[in-house]
Amino acid sequence: MNATIITIGDELLIGQVVDTNSAWMATELTKLGFTIENHISISDTGDKIRSTIDRYLPENDLIIFTGGLGPTNDDITKKVLTEYFNSSLVLSEDVLSAVEAKIKSYGSTMNDLNREQALVPAAAKVLMNNHGTAPGMWFEKDGRVVISLPGVPSEMKGIFNDHIKRELGSYFSLPHIIYKTIMVSGISEAHLAEKLSNWEAALPAGVSLAYLPSPEAIRLRLGAKGVDEASVLKLLDEPIKTLHDIIARYIYGYDNETLEEVIGRMIAERGSHLACAESCTGGTIAQRITAIPGCSKWFKGGAVVYSNEVKSAVLGVEAETLERFGAVSEETVTEMVKGAQKVFGAEYAVATSGIAGPTGGSSEKPVGTVWTAAAGPGFIVTKKFNFGKNRTMNIRRSTAGALSLLQKAINCN
Amino acid sequence: MNATIITIGDELLIGQVVDTNSAWMATELTKLGFTIENHISISDTGDKIRSTIDRYLPENDLIIFTGGLGPTNDDITKKVLTEYFNSSLVLSEDVLSAVEAKIKSYGSTMNDLNREQALVPAAAKVLMNNHGTAPGMWFEKDGRVVISLPGVPSEMKGIFNDHIKRELGSYFSLPHIIYKTIMVSGISEAHLAEKLSNWEAALPAGVSLAYLPSPEAIRLRLGAKGVDEASVLKLLDEPIKTLHDIIARYIYGYDNETLEEVIGRMIAERGSHLACAESCTGGTIAQRITAIPGCSKWFKGGAVVYSNEVKSAVLGVEAETLERFGAVSEETVTEMVKGAQKVFGAEYAVATSGIAGPTGGSSEKPVGTVWTAAAGPGFIVTKKFNFGKNRTMNIRRSTAGALSLLQKAINCN
Repeated sequence: MNATIITIGDELLIGQVVDTNSAWMATELTKLGFTIENHISISDTGDKIRSTIDRYLPENDLIIFTGGLGPTNDDITKKVLTEYFNSSLVLSEDVLSAVEAKIKSYGSTMNDLNREQALVPAAAKVLMNNHGTAPGMWFEKDGRVVISLPGVPSEMKGIFNDHIKRELGSYFSLPHIIYKTIMVSGISEAHLAEKLSNWEAALPAGVSLAYLPSPEAIRLRLGAKGVDEASVLKLLDEPIKTLHDIIARYIYGYDNETLEEVIGRMIAERGSHLACAESCTGGTIAQRITAIPGCSKWFKGGAVVYSNEVKSAVLGVEAETLERFGAVSEETVTEMVKGAQKVFGAEYAVATSGIAGPTGGSSEKPVGTVWTAAAGPGFIVTKKFNFGKNRTMNIRRSTAGALSLLQKAINCN
Repeated sequence: MNATIITIGDELLIGQVVDTNSAWMATELTKLGFTIENHISISDTGDKIRSTIDRYLPENDLIIFTGGLGPTNDDITKKVLTEYFNSSLVLSEDVLSAVEAKIKSYGSTMNDLNREQALVPAAAKVLMNNHGTAPGMWFEKDGRVVISLPGVPSEMKGIFNDHIKRELGSYFSLPHIIYKTIMVSGISEAHLAEKLSNWEAALPAGVSLAYLPSPEAIRLRLGAKGVDEASVLKLLDEPIKTLHDIIARYIYGYDNETLEEVIGRMIAERGSHLACAESCTGGTIAQRITAIPGCSKWFKGGAVVYSNEVKSAVLGVEAETLERFGAVSEETVTEMVKGAQKVFGAEYAVATSGIAGPTGGSSEKPVGTVWTAAAGPGFIVTKKFNFGKNRTMNIRRSTAGALSLLQKAINCN
């Protein structure tokens, strides 16, 4: 079954608002077994809405619109769809009572614009909105379905969960689709692809592979489709097992887990704590860790030590080490990671010292030279990176490199 | 001039990745004077790419693709576009040298997949990629332009800024559009809109206003369109002057400047230094500061102090203060900001202590309670915030609140 998602609104088209509705609905529809053909954003004009349905309805079993259902004059989706399906607006007593109750619960009183929200197309099935005032609408035409939902994410999600999942399941006969995502770090995309080329070529029919790279990790996404869950899982079993045999040391997790989540779980399981000492990453490691709810159980804190004096004053790095080897050196980053363990009272620590750029490089240590270190009970490991000239990318790559070093070290110790 | 943005990739279609490229490009193209007709996301198959160009090229002056240019087998955009424009792939020595230099700078070695990135369609103008390995491509057909860019946001933005803005300006005859963005902090969007309602109603014809709110700042974007720069600037002069008279104390900068950039400039001008002490913001303040190139001249560093012991050990917060008033209190955040000044040897400091959530709140101090402090020569100021329940938003809002407090304090002292 093919589906297309159409979001309506000038604020999307001019880039003022990033469309997150499409990704959410796509995830849900994919889980239900739909193949998503397109996401489309268009402006809220009748011509545009009509021409887009004309264009996409013949090649899709399902079209879902979001947006343009509010009470104000620039919201025209209901009017346009009513005309498109040769219908007319009728009063729904159910919707009227619901809108009245909702408005009352806001401590407000009904006006004409609110009352108009209870007018619904006679040709549509009404999808009650328990999360706002504009109801959703379900139209059918020649075995195809067109759904219109409000653009407010919480209302769209509410109506989807309350009604649409069930209605789609009973209207369409849907296949079973499963995706497995394998999280990989510590290897470049090109080298990974080289290692996996034979494995990829031997993937069974019906199994698809995608590389989703970012400076933080490479996500390998395997997908398979079948008539029931058991047969699809079986199709994925063997490729995932052989993948493990080839790149086990680079796999750190599954299904969109982050490196810091995996590290946090491992450290929390050991009843231990983490601290960090950051120079070139400037707080990015701490920021990523503290984005995790509940991290205070296992994260003690960190020091951002940008100047040499502060490296010594806060972390106890020896002035002689800094003078003899420089701030960007294996010796300094080793003293930083030990200092973080000691000062913050943490069993595990991670440290970075490098030249993020755009200035500050030398011929011996060009911009992009980064030393990282990780320490824990019984181990200290260090790793040098040579990244590029882009400051933002160097910070993200150094953060990922340091976390990857720590994760692999904990795993091996 | 009409433009359509097409993003390619199954990861977008199935909702695994939210498409942020389209909104970014839409903002840039709107500034250049284009009218955006559609954003479309499609899968990376030849049929889909071809049918989408066939469909949209006749009604658009410009189509920009992103995605599908990586080195792996699932990236087919280059091959498909080369065939679509009846061209063939030829080796670009310029691209080859650039890819080789890039791979070498990563400390890695070239493989066949890397080398293939230097093959470019003979019919295309090559747009060199200084931020990655896959070059952009510029095709022309009957006065229309089709551009293909990598999907990695930093590479897409880099090529757009390095080449495309200028090339589009010289290829198309675009109107003169000027946007002036006024950066506002320390006031909510609703209160700002109330203060500005009369001013907005009196804006001259041809001047448009947009509120672009984020947890970091509200951007007020004034736009005007005309035949030449002088006339457009004249149209914007008076509204900006009167805007100042109304909200001067909330304006901290212009044209997408960040609070931390403004703070950095003020501190650097005074030959002084900054440090930070973060609890609930967990390194986000340091991370935002160290994202600024050259910040090492004025930023000493910071401490992320997540546990009470670490607040005492690293910043010298008295155990009695923590016990009597709690970690989230005016007294603690004041000792934190003083401790940061002393430990890091900085004239200026900023500190945060709050409950980011989702757990850790009490009836007296619910999730979202945040104390911030800023200190400098001759001043210590504190401010309490009551934010909501969302951890991510609380961290972003606390960061913005603390930086805004510091900026206004430096400005007044």
